[in-house]
Amino acid sequence: MSLIVMKFGGTSVGDIDRIKNAAGKVAEEIKRGHKVAVVVSAMSGVTDQLIGYCRAISPRYDRGEHDAVVSTGEQVTAGLMALALHQRGLNARSWQGWQLRLLTDSSHGTARIVDIEADAIRRRIQEGEVGVMAGFQGVTDDGRVTTLGRGGSDTSAVALAVALQAERCDIYTDVDGVYTTDPRIVPKAKKMPRVSYEEMLELASLGAKVLQVRSVEMAMRYRMPVQVLSTFANEVGSELPGTLVTEGDKKMESSVVTGIAYTNNEARITLLRLSDKPGVAARVFGPLARAGINVDMIVQSGSENGTVADITFTVPKPDLDRATKVLTDEKTNIGFGNMVSSSEVTKISLVGIGMRSHAGVAATMFETLADKGINIQVIETSEINTSVLIASEYTELALRALHSAYGLDAA
Amino acid sequence: MSLIVMKFGGTSVGDIDRIKNAAGKVAEEIKRGHKVAVVVSAMSGVTDQLIGYCRAISPRYDRGEHDAVVSTGEQVTAGLMALALHQRGLNARSWQGWQLRLLTDSSHGTARIVDIEADAIRRRIQEGEVGVMAGFQGVTDDGRVTTLGRGGSDTSAVALAVALQAERCDIYTDVDGVYTTDPRIVPKAKKMPRVSYEEMLELASLGAKVLQVRSVEMAMRYRMPVQVLSTFANEVGSELPGTLVTEGDKKMESSVVTGIAYTNNEARITLLRLSDKPGVAARVFGPLARAGINVDMIVQSGSENGTVADITFTVPKPDLDRATKVLTDEKTNIGFGNMVSSSEVTKISLVGIGMRSHAGVAATMFETLADKGINIQVIETSEINTSVLIASEYTELALRALHSAYGLDAA
Repeated sequence: MSLIVMKFGGTSVGDIDRIKNAAGKVAEEIKRGHKVAVVVSAMSGVTDQLIGYCRAISPRYDRGEHDAVVSTGEQVTAGLMALALHQRGLNARSWQGWQLRLLTDSSHGTARIVDIEADAIRRRIQEGEVGVMAGFQGVTDDGRVTTLGRGGSDTSAVALAVALQAERCDIYTDVDGVYTTDPRIVPKAKKMPRVSYEEMLELASLGAKVLQVRSVEMAMRYRMPVQVLSTFANEVGSELPGTLVTEGDKKMESSVVTGIAYTNNEARITLLRLSDKPGVAARVFGPLARAGINVDMIVQSGSENGTVADITFTVPKPDLDRATKVLTDEKTNIGFGNMVSSSEVTKISLVGIGMRSHAGVAATMFETLADKGINIQVIETSEINTSVLIASEYTELALRALHSAYGLDAA
Repeated sequence: MSLIVMKFGGTSVGDIDRIKNAAGKVAEEIKRGHKVAVVVSAMSGVTDQLIGYCRAISPRYDRGEHDAVVSTGEQVTAGLMALALHQRGLNARSWQGWQLRLLTDSSHGTARIVDIEADAIRRRIQEGEVGVMAGFQGVTDDGRVTTLGRGGSDTSAVALAVALQAERCDIYTDVDGVYTTDPRIVPKAKKMPRVSYEEMLELASLGAKVLQVRSVEMAMRYRMPVQVLSTFANEVGSELPGTLVTEGDKKMESSVVTGIAYTNNEARITLLRLSDKPGVAARVFGPLARAGINVDMIVQSGSENGTVADITFTVPKPDLDRATKVLTDEKTNIGFGNMVSSSEVTKISLVGIGMRSHAGVAATMFETLADKGINIQVIETSEINTSVLIASEYTELALRALHSAYGLDAA
């Protein structure tokens, strides 16, 4: 059976009319001869409202009860979507996470999927029913409700597609695909018809918000094609109107830089005049790791006379205050002269497979930014991305200049 | 263990501050040495909003999906109540209907409780945890969510109290007990400290809205004491500050009329000039029963010459149009001359055990109403109630006059 999983995000089911519109998209796929499973997010704003209730009772709430509360948003949408499908004459029923069951570990708020017991929903879909699963949620082995973390419905959808051996997982959202960079900042950004799993994973990890990172990881692991497309456009005639995330192919190797991502979620810390002796990195990053703070970009300056060096790195912006406190407490043990930090920084990342083997890529980036008078604070490279940290105020200027420099501008 | 079930209705958990206030009531009971199970309704307005969503998609919605949607309101409150109890330093967890499980039949929207698997929640309550159950909902044997009908959380609470062999089920609401009649209409109405199951069942059936009829039936069947009391009053020093619904006792036999209920939910139909021959009642009420319309009060006038009689009865107001259509279709078969109907009628009921054996009770009622110039359209009596149907415009006048006539006025 040719089965497609269709996932609708919060804005796509933001009110009753939009739920009806999404049901229309499902009806179209069924008319094309597909069997369909639907995965829905909460109506936009609902999850935030429910989280707000929890916070209003206690800023340090129990994650298990938080999950019991916030998971209801998707349950409402799933039921309403089933009703909207009935209204179109389709057979449909809703499935909450515990009904399938979608089994997770017990890490409430950031639970990871262990297994999906998909036999019952598969049988009913084969009999012609549309299965509508509440996204974002699962259940532990001992029957407590869990949630998968922000954006988790993408992951729910890909996981269900894998469990049902679907042909494709379509992620309906408020943009019509994945762009070479943020089109709100760079009007010449182009929609990519295809992008490889590896590049999509980098783009998502480095700030592109169109897909949850974990959903791309799962799609890559199981080679599940994922299409990102708009709920609001009326595409006619095109079989794949959005961006297909799939295997890399020959064509893609021709362009070194596929896309440019950016994120404002990191803050910079610099420790000045460190004793440059073995073990200094361990003394800096050990206490941060024990405090549960992830360090991302790191650059250590070579010392001038063998006794002094600086070290600069980034941490998640919400962890900045905690990180500086940890480091201040450890100042004597680490042995540094001064500490400076900034949360007004942006990380800009070029993404493309085989980037490291193209020597000119990084050079072009540095020249382009230098031409515009933009100072680079940290540089980081990998096989698939080249990232720099710059002052946030240059974000738009840098994105537009780099987009042009790598020939990504639309004609 | 001395265990109390505390149920909080929609206005008692209407916003975050009220949920915190309700959690305070729970903390007080625990301080008094009780173990506690809590049952919660949805925050006031939430259920109506969810029903509104279902209706906006389709006026004739699937009851199963309706239940999946509307049951989420209580799940939210249950989680928030658990968080509010944590905030007071109490150990607590929420239980959704399927988690216990609270098993029901599959009559979605009006499901009846089959069984409560209370072992797990009982064990945890014995260990000192407060169990917070989402009211109004259950689950079928094959794992679909059901709801128990409007006001069903009262029934959830009594059923849980029975399953846990609780000492008492306290129903917290926005009034501080059961009154001799509606205190908004009769300012001299008195709060009753105690009322028997039988009388409470009559009062609830005949229009008193303070408890769902089914919850009283269940309390009576299992002899579970139920106390109705206010969430908003700060009772100090009184062990039972509300109204206790319990076994009838000697004291209660002294007053013949315990309370006066009224309802505007019925409409009157009169069929004029019926052929007065055997089987006419069956020809009138058979078609109505087949159409699923419940007939309540019935009076048939004696014919004057053996061939003509009138029949008057009441039906639920929402069914009036359907009932008159059914009767019009059957006019020839039934054989009546004309039909008149009115939805501007009110049923007023005196409730009290052993009423039929007190000959003067009904006479006092008729005289009191006659004195005020109020015409009685239908009369109905039973062992425990005497009811009359009058024009709605006289409701307040009749209630106040009867309340005085039976010596119920507060000093």
